[in-house]
Parts: sequence; C-alpha cells; structure tokens
Amino acid sequence: MFNIGNKENYEIDEKGVRNVRGLVVDMIDNANSGHPGICLGAATILYTLFKRHMNIYLDDTKFLNRDRFVLSAGHGAPLYYVILYLMKLLTMDDLKNLRKINSKTPGHPEYLKTPLVEMSTGPLGQGIASSVGMAISENYLHKITNGLIDHYTYVLCGDGELEEGVTYEALSLAGTLKLQKFIVICDYNKVTLDNELNVSSKEDLKKRFESINYLVLEANDTVQSIDNALIEAKNSNLPCIIFVNTIIGYGSFLEGKNIVHGKPLAADDILNIHEKLGLYKTPFTVNQDVLEDFYQTVLKRGEKYYKTWLKRYQKVKDKNIIDKLLKGENTVSLTDINIEYNNKSLRELSGDILNFLASKFPFLIGGSCDLSSSCKTNLNDYLIFSSENRDGRNIYFGIREHAMSGVLNGMALSGLRPFGSTFLTFSDYMKPGIRMSAMMNLPVIYIFTHDSITVGEDGPTHHPIEQLASLSLIPNLKVYRPYDLNELIGSYMDIMNNTSPSALILPRDNKEISELTKINGVFDGMYVVLDSLKDDYINLITNGEELGLVLEVAKNLRELDIGVRVISIPCLKNVKPKEKAKLLEKRTIGITLGVPDYLYSFTNEVIGITEFSLSGSKEELLDYFGFTVKELESKILELLNK
Amino acid sequence: MFNIGNKENYEIDEKGVRNVRGLVVDMIDNANSGHPGICLGAATILYTLFKRHMNIYLDDTKFLNRDRFVLSAGHGAPLYYVILYLMKLLTMDDLKNLRKINSKTPGHPEYLKTPLVEMSTGPLGQGIASSVGMAISENYLHKITNGLIDHYTYVLCGDGELEEGVTYEALSLAGTLKLQKFIVICDYNKVTLDNELNVSSKEDLKKRFESINYLVLEANDTVQSIDNALIEAKNSNLPCIIFVNTIIGYGSFLEGKNIVHGKPLAADDILNIHEKLGLYKTPFTVNQDVLEDFYQTVLKRGEKYYKTWLKRYQKVKDKNIIDKLLKGENTVSLTDINIEYNNKSLRELSGDILNFLASKFPFLIGGSCDLSSSCKTNLNDYLIFSSENRDGRNIYFGIREHAMSGVLNGMALSGLRPFGSTFLTFSDYMKPGIRMSAMMNLPVIYIFTHDSITVGEDGPTHHPIEQLASLSLIPNLKVYRPYDLNELIGSYMDIMNNTSPSALILPRDNKEISELTKINGVFDGMYVVLDSLKDDYINLITNGEELGLVLEVAKNLRELDIGVRVISIPCLKNVKPKEKAKLLEKRTIGITLGVPDYLYSFTNEVIGITEFSLSGSKEELLDYFGFTVKELESKILELLNK
Repeated sequence: MFNIGNKENYEIDEKGVRNVRGLVVDMIDNANSGHPGICLGAATILYTLFKRHMNIYLDDTKFLNRDRFVLSAGHGAPLYYVILYLMKLLTMDDLKNLRKINSKTPGHPEYLKTPLVEMSTGPLGQGIASSVGMAISENYLHKITNGLIDHYTYVLCGDGELEEGVTYEALSLAGTLKLQKFIVICDYNKVTLDNELNVSSKEDLKKRFESINYLVLEANDTVQSIDNALIEAKNSNLPCIIFVNTIIGYGSFLEGKNIVHGKPLAADDILNIHEKLGLYKTPFTVNQDVLEDFYQTVLKRGEKYYKTWLKRYQKVKDKNIIDKLLKGENTVSLTDINIEYNNKSLRELSGDILNFLASKFPFLIGGSCDLSSSCKTNLNDYLIFSSENRDGRNIYFGIREHAMSGVLNGMALSGLRPFGSTFLTFSDYMKPGIRMSAMMNLPVIYIFTHDSITVGEDGPTHHPIEQLASLSLIPNLKVYRPYDLNELIGSYMDIMNNTSPSALILPRDNKEISELTKINGVFDGMYVVLDSLKDDYINLITNGEELGLVLEVAKNLRELDIGVRVISIPCLKNVKPKEKAKLLEKRTIGITLGVPDYLYSFTNEVIGITEFSLSGSKEELLDYFGFTVKELESKILELLNK
Repeated sequence: MFNIGNKENYEIDEKGVRNVRGLVVDMIDNANSGHPGICLGAATILYTLFKRHMNIYLDDTKFLNRDRFVLSAGHGAPLYYVILYLMKLLTMDDLKNLRKINSKTPGHPEYLKTPLVEMSTGPLGQGIASSVGMAISENYLHKITNGLIDHYTYVLCGDGELEEGVTYEALSLAGTLKLQKFIVICDYNKVTLDNELNVSSKEDLKKRFESINYLVLEANDTVQSIDNALIEAKNSNLPCIIFVNTIIGYGSFLEGKNIVHGKPLAADDILNIHEKLGLYKTPFTVNQDVLEDFYQTVLKRGEKYYKTWLKRYQKVKDKNIIDKLLKGENTVSLTDINIEYNNKSLRELSGDILNFLASKFPFLIGGSCDLSSSCKTNLNDYLIFSSENRDGRNIYFGIREHAMSGVLNGMALSGLRPFGSTFLTFSDYMKPGIRMSAMMNLPVIYIFTHDSITVGEDGPTHHPIEQLASLSLIPNLKVYRPYDLNELIGSYMDIMNNTSPSALILPRDNKEISELTKINGVFDGMYVVLDSLKDDYINLITNGEELGLVLEVAKNLRELDIGVRVISIPCLKNVKPKEKAKLLEKRTIGITLGVPDYLYSFTNEVIGITEFSLSGSKEELLDYFGFTVKELESKILELLNK
C-alpha cells in the first residue's frame, strides 16, 4: 500500500546507494576500525528496505506497530547508522564518532544506545533467533488484539551466519509455525571472513529453506530487484528468505575477496571507491537531494501508516489488551496467590504458580525444549501456539535450547513476558542467548529444573556441577535457588518485579517444606533461617535442596554444644554488601551440591563437588559425595578441628 | 564382504530382536528408571547393525581399525547394553545392575566404563558431532596411512535430536567435506518426549539432507529392510542418513505415544510385551540359539576382519605413522623449540608454536570457526582438509562453534591431537562440547584469542567478562592465561603433556615481554614474578595481559615504601593447595579484567569488572574501567586504607 515503485525513483535510489557506500567508507576510515565488506556489499539491501518498505514513525521510533528490523549481521552497523542518518535519527557527527566510547554509534548495534536499534547484535545468529521471537510475538499479538498489531519483521544476515546452528534451529521453528510477516534477507556474497563460503559450506540453500517451509526468493544487487523481491515476500503467507546476490566490499580493490571483511581500507582504495561511485571527494558529504528524498519518503509513509493505525485503534471497542501493550505493562502481582502445597514437588508447585500468573495476564507466554512435562511449565488452560492457534500460549520450541533463548529475547523486546524451560544441565546450550538477555536487561524468565546430582540415575551428563556457579557469573542475571514453597513464592514475586532476566533453579524431586523459611528472605537475598542459641557460633550458608540437610546437621551440632546459625541465600544477586558483612561476621562454612566457587564470594571454606558425577540413585550419590548428615557433620567438625 | 544376508538368517534375527526387546523391558523394570521408548523402538536397528555389519574384534575391543558406533541418543543405553551382552562383553548381572552406582551399565553410556562404548552421550547432538569428528579422523588417517585405516563410522540418533542446532552444524560440515564411510541412522519414530514430532518440527527431512549433500535412505523396522539400507549406504561415496520408520515403545500398550519415552512401564504392560513377543515369562532370560548365533556371527566376522587387516599392516613398508597410532602417541616435545619474539603479539607467537608442533608430528590437526586468520591458527605448510585433500590439516569448521567442540572430541577419541580456535567470547557457543571434552578427559586443545575488554571497538558482545571464570569452573579443563612468550611456551609445554583438555586464552594485541616471567611458573600454576624488598608486604595476584599493568603498579607502590610482591597465576588448575597457602600467607589483592569471582578462591579482595563492557578503544576502555596504573594504585591504597 505504501510502496512507491516507478522507474524514475530507482534512479535517485541508485544514486542514494552510492552515497551510502561513500559514507560507510568514510566512517570506517575515520574510526580506523570496522567492517567494510558487508557495509559496501549490503548497502542496496538496507537502502531499499528502509526507503521503500519499512513502516516506521520517525516522530516516535518506539511506535508499537512499527515494522521491526534486526541487523543480525551486527558488524554491518556503520551501514545501518548511515540509513539512520538518512532518516535524520543520527547526525553527521554521530557518524564521525563511530566506535568511540559512549557514542550513539558503537562498533556493533547496542540496544537502547541508538534510535531504532531493536536489539544488540554481534554474536552471529542471535539476531536471527530474536527476530523469530519478534515474529512469534507479532503473530500472537495480532490474534489477541483482533488484528491491531500487524507489522512485518525483517532480519538481515550474512550467508556465513547461516552456518550457525542457532539460525537453523530458529528458522526451522519459524517454518514449523508458518510465521507470517517474517522476512529474512541474506547478504549472499558467498564469502566468509577466512575464505570463500564454499570452503566451509556446500549447501543447496534454496533446497534447504524449501525443506523447512520457506518461500525462497533471489534478487540481484539493484534497488529494483530487491524491491520486487520484498513485494513478493510481503504478499506471501509463508516465512520468506531472500538471497540477494551481493559483492563483498563492493567497489574496493579488494571486492569479492575475504580480506575486505573486517579491516579499514587503504587510502588509495578509499579514493578509488569515491571516484568509482562518482562521489564528492570530501569525506562525510552527501547529496542533499538523496537525503531529502529518503527522509521525506520514509517520513510520509510512516506518518500515513501511523495515522491509519490510530484510526483503527480508535475504532476498537475492547482496548484492554492493546492499552496494556501501549503502557508496557508486562507484570502482575502475586499478592492474591493461593497455592496448595499438597505434598507436591517444587517444580510442580512452580507449575501451579506459573499457571496462576498466566491466568492473570495475557503476556505471560512461553514453553520448553521438549521438556514441558518434566519442567512442569505447561499452561494448562491454553493451547499450543501453532499456525492454527495463534493465541496458543504454550510454545513447543522443540529440542532447540539455543534458539529458545534467542526467541525469548525477541519476545521480551516485543513487550511480552516470556518464559522458557529445560533441565539445568542444558542451560549450557543456551548460554549465548542468556548472555544477550542479560546484556539487554530483558525480563526473560528461565526455569531450569533437575538441579544437581540428585537427578540421580541419568548420570554425569545430566548432573549440573558447574552450571549454577556459571549462571551466577553473568552480570544482570538474577539466579534463584529456593528451598521450599515459601522461598519459591518469594522468588516468583521478585522475578515478576524484575526488569532484567531471571533464572529459577529447581530440583527434580524435593518436596520438603519448612516453617523456618521466609518469603521475604528472597528479596534480601540471604537471611537467617535458624538462629544460634549461643553467642559463640558458626554460620552455615547454603541454598536450595541442601537446606534441609544443613538444618539437620545444625541440629546435631547443637547437640554437641556447638553454636550454629543457618543462613539461606535464595538469591545471591539480591544480597547487599553491608548486610552480607553483618551476617557473616562469624566464621562461615558454605555447603553446595556443585563447584564450591559458587559460594567463594561469601567464604573460602566451602564443602562442594569438584568432579563430574556418576549414574546412581539419588541416595547412593549423596552418600558417594559425602552429602549425608553424618558426613557433613564430620567434615564441619574437621574444619573446626574438633 | 562380511555380510550374511539369506532368508533363513532373517528368521533367527527377528527372533533375536524379540529377545532384545524383552531384555530391555526387564532391565528398565528392574532399575525402575530408564527410557523404554527408544529401547523398544530401535531394537531392530541396533540388532541389525551389530549382527550384520559392525566390524569389531571381540578379543580387543580397542582394535584400531574397528568400525565405530556412537549412540548419540544416549537414553537408549539399555538397548546397547543388551547388544553388548549378546557379544558377551557384558554379563546378565551387568544388565541387572542398570543405573546402579559404579556398574558397567550407567543410565547413559559413559566412556571408559563399558567396553565398546566409544564416548559418553546423553546431551542430544553431542554424539552426532563427535561421530563426524571420528569420520574426519578416519578420512584423514586413511590418506596418511596409505589406506590402512578404513573403518566405518555409524551413529544412531533420534528424530527429535535432529532439531538440535549442533546436529545441523556437524552434519552440514560432514556434507561439505563429503565424508566417506559415515552413516547416520535415525530412529524415525515421529514422536518426541512432549508430543508428536510434527508439533515442533514440520521439516521435509529427505529434502533437508539432500540439500546438504547426503544420500538419503529409508527403511522399515525389519532386519531385512535395515540390512539392505546399510548395504546401500556402505556402497555410497557420500555421507548417508537412513531414516528407519520405527514405533516408539514398540509392543507396549503405550506404543506410538510420547508418554512411553522415559518412564518405566507398568507391570501389566511388561507382561503384555513378553506375551506379544512370545518370550519367556521369567525376566532376564534369552534364547540360547539367539545368543550363540549373534555372538558367533560377530566374533567370526570380526576375527576375519582383524586378521585381514594384520596382513595388510604387515605388508606396509613405512610403518612410522601407523605404529604411532597403534602406540597411541599423540604428543611431542617442545624442548628444541626455537621461536623468535620479533615484536610479535602473543597470538602470533602462539601460531608460530602451533606450526612448529605441527611440523613435528602428524596428529596435530585442527582449525577455526572462520577465524583462523584472527586466531593465528593456520598451519601454513599444510592444505585445507577437504574432499580433494584428505591430508589437509587445516579444518574450516565454518561458523559452527558448537559442532567444532563436538568434532574435536571425536577426533581426540580417534587418537588425533586436535585443536580448535575462536574468540574467547564465543566459547559460550561451544560450552556443551567443552564439557564433554572435560567429562571424557580428552586431550583437546582450545585456543581462545581476543580476551577481555582490550578487544576494544567491537564492543560488549565481543568482550568476554565472565567467560574466563566460567571456563575455569569446568572440572578437568585446564585454562591457561599466559602473559608473555615465556609463559606461552610454558603453557604449550604443559598442554602437550596433558591427557585432559586445555584452553589457552590469549589477548588480541599484547606484545609485552618481561625478563621476570618463567616457563616453569606455568607448571606450578602460580609463582612469584617480583619479590618484595621488604619483610612486610602485600601480594598482588593476577595473570595474562594485566601482569604488565600490575608490575607497573607494584613499582609505584614500592616508591611509596609499601612492600609488594607480584604473583602470576598462568594456570589456576595447576596450583597445589600447599603452595597456594604458603604463597598467600600475607594479605593478597587480586586484579583481573573480568568478573572478580575468577580469583575468589585465592582472596576475597579482588579488583575486577562486574558489568558488561562497551564499545571504545582499548585505552578508553581501560580508563573507563579503572585499569590504569594510576587508578589501580589508588584502589589498592584505598583497600589498604592509606
């Protein structure tokens, strides 16, 4: 509807593309760092997409129904910054500050640092996975808002990037779900950093994407060809991938060669490119007619799009959901929660809470990597999200952990409150995506069950040893490890208040419950569960399923007339340094069913596990690793030299 | 040549398969834990493969040229144990001890615990990736031993497992490399743990695998059909995948349903299966004719295979390489190394050492995830490993970090000494594979360059903050972080002596060199680089590129009349507790360009970085995070209250 596509326009567009190429060369030269290969090669793609298709409202770049664009090939950042400059969202000075500290133009796109940068990208594949999440969100929100949300999601990737497993996972999921309005554009230059693409990949890409249910299109590196492909893609009901035959480092002496990928160009090459493209010789100049044409075109199309949408919005009677979205509401209170213990395991109770939350607000949506029945994360009153049921709220991610994390990020970026679950040991598979949740401070909820060696018979591959400590190292990620229902409710209350990601760690079987635990203890991060009866005492610190064991040990030590205080630390990141110092004035011994490093920031005396586990029953394994009341008691006595 | 395929045989085979199914049901019932779905469903596959095709020598299950079989779907372990029982490599008692602690029959296959278990499996996709590594090894060794190594590599996976990105990565690599004698068998039951396969994946699998250059075959769940498919696969020059149409939980009341995947069967169902299959009602019984037929067939084929091979071996004139393989030699001494510093960066020097080592022994082979030019891991005197150059020693893994780690594991399992490289921040992508290297204690060499915020302009996605600490948490993995050439040589010397995996961490640019560093310091893990001139002093501990900075700080502190000793810790895992206690008697302050947790096992006073980084020059970033001589000095003085 908003496309302009007559021949005259293509002329100024081709001139525009030449200008873009000139600017990226100047930027990289000026910064003396960057990736000329993709910036020169993919210029026509980004120019055409934004000039002729993207529906964005320049007065409010956060406009809810804007088309989304993700630069998954994040090293193409300078190119995107030039496009933002043409839309007057960045200034020429911003372009000159490329890669400088605290500029709006960092080396790779960074979420919240630059207008219209939908997410941070750089690690290959993450943008693809998150764009799938954005498309899932659009398809879901389209349904539950009666069509009010109906934007496209575009993502640009490199051909080498398609080698990444996470792209395969995410794109296969998108194909399975028949996501609509989802368009992948591949900068198909057939060259990777190290060599030609066919040295590392000899795939029939058309066939590969047809096999996962995509409309596969091809385009040449002209505005007209790309424009036509985009029109066809937008008219399709299938997810679509467009392979644009580009030339890496277009115009450079090194064009078509891998060595043009990531280093600034030589001075004579820069002159050469400027001359070849018929550009001004002065760096950082641009044809004013190009700038105005681009800006006005995007501006006007966007205004029309925005106003039309406002009219549609005004006509809608039940504005409940859309207004929540507009306000960015993505949480709900747990105050009126009523969960029955009923001798259930912690993961079952977690499922009950999750179901309660889902009934309270429509943006809680998520799923599992084929373990919803084990992780107890099925939303029982809702269908499976599929091409037939776009309002389904159970996403069957398949055994695609890495993609799940990236998809959840995209969903959070679209205003949903997504959760994803698998076994704790498989959190390793999704670490790169979790890192992106944390880097962008997205309120994604990770639910990891089957904690520790108490998983039992499945053996060492299924027993997390270093995962709890490893997740705890990630900045911004709050890791919760509750012991019982009280601490679980506290965890969920805190999680729902978080604006950053959370990881909830739950054991497989534990059904213990204590009258000593506190909901509020989670908010403080650490708290005294059992106080000492004597003035002279030691602290035993722990969390999660070990707490029951440690309370038993404490009881025994008391009988030996040893003063003991037991402290639970359900959330390390919530601990305030002053509180920590106050609580740990006395000698402190940590107990954890994993690498001791997890508690080293509290004490250097930690009883943990420093080797991989083995297959056996939970009881056999606890005994083997010395996590019985008797063994722990004697280890503590040994430490105390008693 | 060794295939027996007449009709009579199929009759005893079908009876054999029924016996196998009975035994797996008994085992899982007896253990009260396990996965009946695949064990019943894939029985015909494993029976046929071992009875009719696998060339193994039962007298020496480690025979070098044995066919390799990897049970990537590790939860099918009981089924494999029954096959091992039929070859008399396990006893009936072993089967009864399924999933018991310290048995030969753990819940998932564990390397070195059970004869003919080629690797530990369980986390989906790892077995696939490592089997590709075994096939790469076979293709390489075939060439350099003049054909003496010429075994097949088989791997069994589930259809849900093919959703895992790592399987896509590894199998695409295998297709690109046109690996020969590589056969994937898919237990195609169209059901996953949570639901039917098509809920999470609607791929055209035939097309998908054709697009990555596989011969794609289909078989029914009969010995004859599977046998025929295997014969066809073995005759192909392409990598091959066979989809065997199976029924999950075959024979059970629950057959064909996802709920039969992972829970022991009910008592009446066990009776039902036994009856349906016409088996003895007494658990753990087997038809003796089946047992003897299976055993004798495999034994005789294997003996013939082994003896033929011995004759071939005896005829070979130059036995140098094959004898090294037979002896398991996979290392070389660095004593006569002669590396020129020449103002090179540490990663360039690492490349020089790697090239020196490659020239010394033929089993050092590896590559990079499209970053060999950045990580400096190209072996300059050798070609790229490809279908044309099977003796190439540079593997272009493509941008497939996860698969790389799994492939390296397979190569190490085949007696090679593999290395793989990428940027440190992307080690996250390969964590699950690194964990498997560590769990199996394989001497894989990981080379991670572009350490820390000093990577500079590429920004937070490219700056490791928590990766160094995270890798250090993995049991058995030795992480090296040398400062200069001396410590780099020491690291390589130690790495070459390791029988477990190593990760070498190198900065992007650092060219510093010191006369104070020691090669031997690496072997001790930590050592005094600069001693105190005073009796009263503090320890400053650090490693890697920070050491230069810390030495400067120490100099300044000395001028303020503060006693300072500087300790380098190039390898934390090499540190002996006693030595550590002795060295750290005095107050100790740690300095690290990442999360402080990395050094908390040494001291609770650590100056580190607890947030994600940003884009800027190396100098800007060091300044921003307070890692300048001046800032560090003042932070230390503050800690000392001076």
